[in-house]
Amino acid sequence: MDIVASAKYMRYIMDRFYSIGEDESGGVTRLGYTEAEDQMHNELVKIGREEGYKVEIDEVGNTFLSMNKPNNYYLIGSHLDSVVNGGRYDGVLGVAAGLLLLKRIKDSNLKIPLKVVAFRCEESANFMKATLGSSLITGEYDTKDFNLKSKTGKTLGDIFKERGYSQKPEIIKGVSAYLELHIEQGRVLETENLSIGIVSSIAGNTRFKVNIEGMAEHSGATPMDIRKDALCDAAEIILGIERIGREENTAATVGVIENHPNSLNVIPGKVELVVDIRDNDNENIERIRLKIYKLIEDVCNRRDSRYSIEFLSSSEAVQLDKGIQTELSKIATELGIKHKIMASGAGHDAMKLAKVTKAGMLFIPCKNGISHNPKEEANLEDAALGAEIMFRYLKG
Amino acid sequence: MDIVASAKYMRYIMDRFYSIGEDESGGVTRLGYTEAEDQMHNELVKIGREEGYKVEIDEVGNTFLSMNKPNNYYLIGSHLDSVVNGGRYDGVLGVAAGLLLLKRIKDSNLKIPLKVVAFRCEESANFMKATLGSSLITGEYDTKDFNLKSKTGKTLGDIFKERGYSQKPEIIKGVSAYLELHIEQGRVLETENLSIGIVSSIAGNTRFKVNIEGMAEHSGATPMDIRKDALCDAAEIILGIERIGREENTAATVGVIENHPNSLNVIPGKVELVVDIRDNDNENIERIRLKIYKLIEDVCNRRDSRYSIEFLSSSEAVQLDKGIQTELSKIATELGIKHKIMASGAGHDAMKLAKVTKAGMLFIPCKNGISHNPKEEANLEDAALGAEIMFRYLKG
Repeated sequence: MDIVASAKYMRYIMDRFYSIGEDESGGVTRLGYTEAEDQMHNELVKIGREEGYKVEIDEVGNTFLSMNKPNNYYLIGSHLDSVVNGGRYDGVLGVAAGLLLLKRIKDSNLKIPLKVVAFRCEESANFMKATLGSSLITGEYDTKDFNLKSKTGKTLGDIFKERGYSQKPEIIKGVSAYLELHIEQGRVLETENLSIGIVSSIAGNTRFKVNIEGMAEHSGATPMDIRKDALCDAAEIILGIERIGREENTAATVGVIENHPNSLNVIPGKVELVVDIRDNDNENIERIRLKIYKLIEDVCNRRDSRYSIEFLSSSEAVQLDKGIQTELSKIATELGIKHKIMASGAGHDAMKLAKVTKAGMLFIPCKNGISHNPKEEANLEDAALGAEIMFRYLKG
Repeated sequence: MDIVASAKYMRYIMDRFYSIGEDESGGVTRLGYTEAEDQMHNELVKIGREEGYKVEIDEVGNTFLSMNKPNNYYLIGSHLDSVVNGGRYDGVLGVAAGLLLLKRIKDSNLKIPLKVVAFRCEESANFMKATLGSSLITGEYDTKDFNLKSKTGKTLGDIFKERGYSQKPEIIKGVSAYLELHIEQGRVLETENLSIGIVSSIAGNTRFKVNIEGMAEHSGATPMDIRKDALCDAAEIILGIERIGREENTAATVGVIENHPNSLNVIPGKVELVVDIRDNDNENIERIRLKIYKLIEDVCNRRDSRYSIEFLSSSEAVQLDKGIQTELSKIATELGIKHKIMASGAGHDAMKLAKVTKAGMLFIPCKNGISHNPKEEANLEDAALGAEIMFRYLKG
């Protein structure tokens, strides 16, 4: 294997997309089902034409490249959209890895049936719902999704009508296995000094909002012992959720806090928290949710505050294919690549493909774990190692 | 004493002001040095003319009513401005109490030299600085105050020029004692079922901002044990400040919290808190401030986060006149009025007048302690009891 040459080719592909959707943040904004994402797919098609690949665009705008449109094939790819002020690696790198393998197959005249895919709208940034392109062709959508509105206020349904896309797309066929390479979006690999993570499962989640009501009063005129400070309730709940997350070895986060009236001389009277629980076991999620509900009840009862809990959303954890994991791990070991089998806390297109085929994923480290940020960065030699593992898996 | 008749007269006065500055909140918006406050002072002048009082407007717009412009006199009053969406009792009640006493002096042909005052712009709502009218005539201002901007962006200096007010006003003369009746703006009197509070001191304060920096990362992809969640640091600090406030029997409050990026699936990377410490002893404020600084240092060191502290503002605690307190308390006892001597956590015009004369204050309960709110409410019979105490003090 020539890792340096592979990394160089991937850099060339990444650079082809570099300036698309560039924004003042120094990063990129390529929201799903917008013109910026179209430009990304057009550039991919252009690369495909230059290499002599066959191009297929499905009924919802996902792009597929292959040597000769095989009927039964491996599928490798990811997505080309980004969040607002996002980075250039998230998604694009997985498509670049696919293109590298297709190029190697072509250049070596191998008979491996491979399609490279770029899914549409993987990020929730535009419609507040993630993995739209891959969900639509795996039957994992809800007809209500077409009522979702983009950031500019257009419904997905109207956008689909304008583009001539189908709102009842066929389920993808012929995929013998799906593989996806992606940046980790966390610091686990970097911290443990590993080049590759082999993904065992993709976390499910549940999200809810906690509304705490204390009493807004004059911060000078209200002695401590008769206060009902909703922010103090919130603080106990935040620390309790952190403790439970640690005890349970799961991810439990308060990412959002809104304080009212949020005024220097008024004791906080109302606080809203948004809680995100993620785990790779659906039963764990449920158990942890109940544990956190109990915590909230205990804190608010003890402090004599009122509260309510509002369900926001949830998704189930998805187990990726065990056989693929074993195989990828074996190859990595043979190649002497430092790796581990690990769960993914973030969602990916692979969790949708897992509904219709065997699916596997490889993570590579990203610098300081930063993602969804202009500072997103990854070492393309790690990506080349990942591509090499996938290449050997395809060769069987 | 005829408490019912006194309460009725004060109700009549309050009603004269009722609709001025009414807003959609059901409360009133009468910002200092705006037209709404002018209307309040004009109405006061009208009441004065109807009663045959002499009217004086000083160089900064404060209004004084008296029988015959005495040279040496008791001064009783408060302010007529309000916060945004405020209540109708804060300030106005103190002016109404003064008017009641002036009326009683007039009707009984007593020779007590009394002026009733309505100070300008006591609330910090318009210029982010409180007690402007009373500060200006007691020498307690800074020439920089004229650079302060109103909510509509005009400087105080420009407003003064337009109105022909002086930016170097004379210090008020001839005041033998200042008395002010005010709603408590807290729940202490209500909780203890008392009609009157005799104010011993007005709290000083110090305010500072705490900037905590952790690391913003993907809430799914970052295990609990490698996180730097700035909101968890903030939560420990909030609870620590509550604990210190209780231990020290002072008022220590985190009223403001700003969380970044405040996004459901991102671990909080930056949090700002604003801390308000109030106490009636300046040395206590300093000691508590250092204790809270130490707390912040300990929490952020232990959690390996960076932080900085930004000073915002401070004001010194003011002791009111001991002799007046003793006298008012003696009268209340004689009248069989349930009362206590208590500190004021909120600032008032009395703390400025205390710089140039003997000053005393009476609190009456307000319903549920609510103030700066359309729901602000007080029992005018309590106010009438307070006025009676002041009346007997004037009679000596």
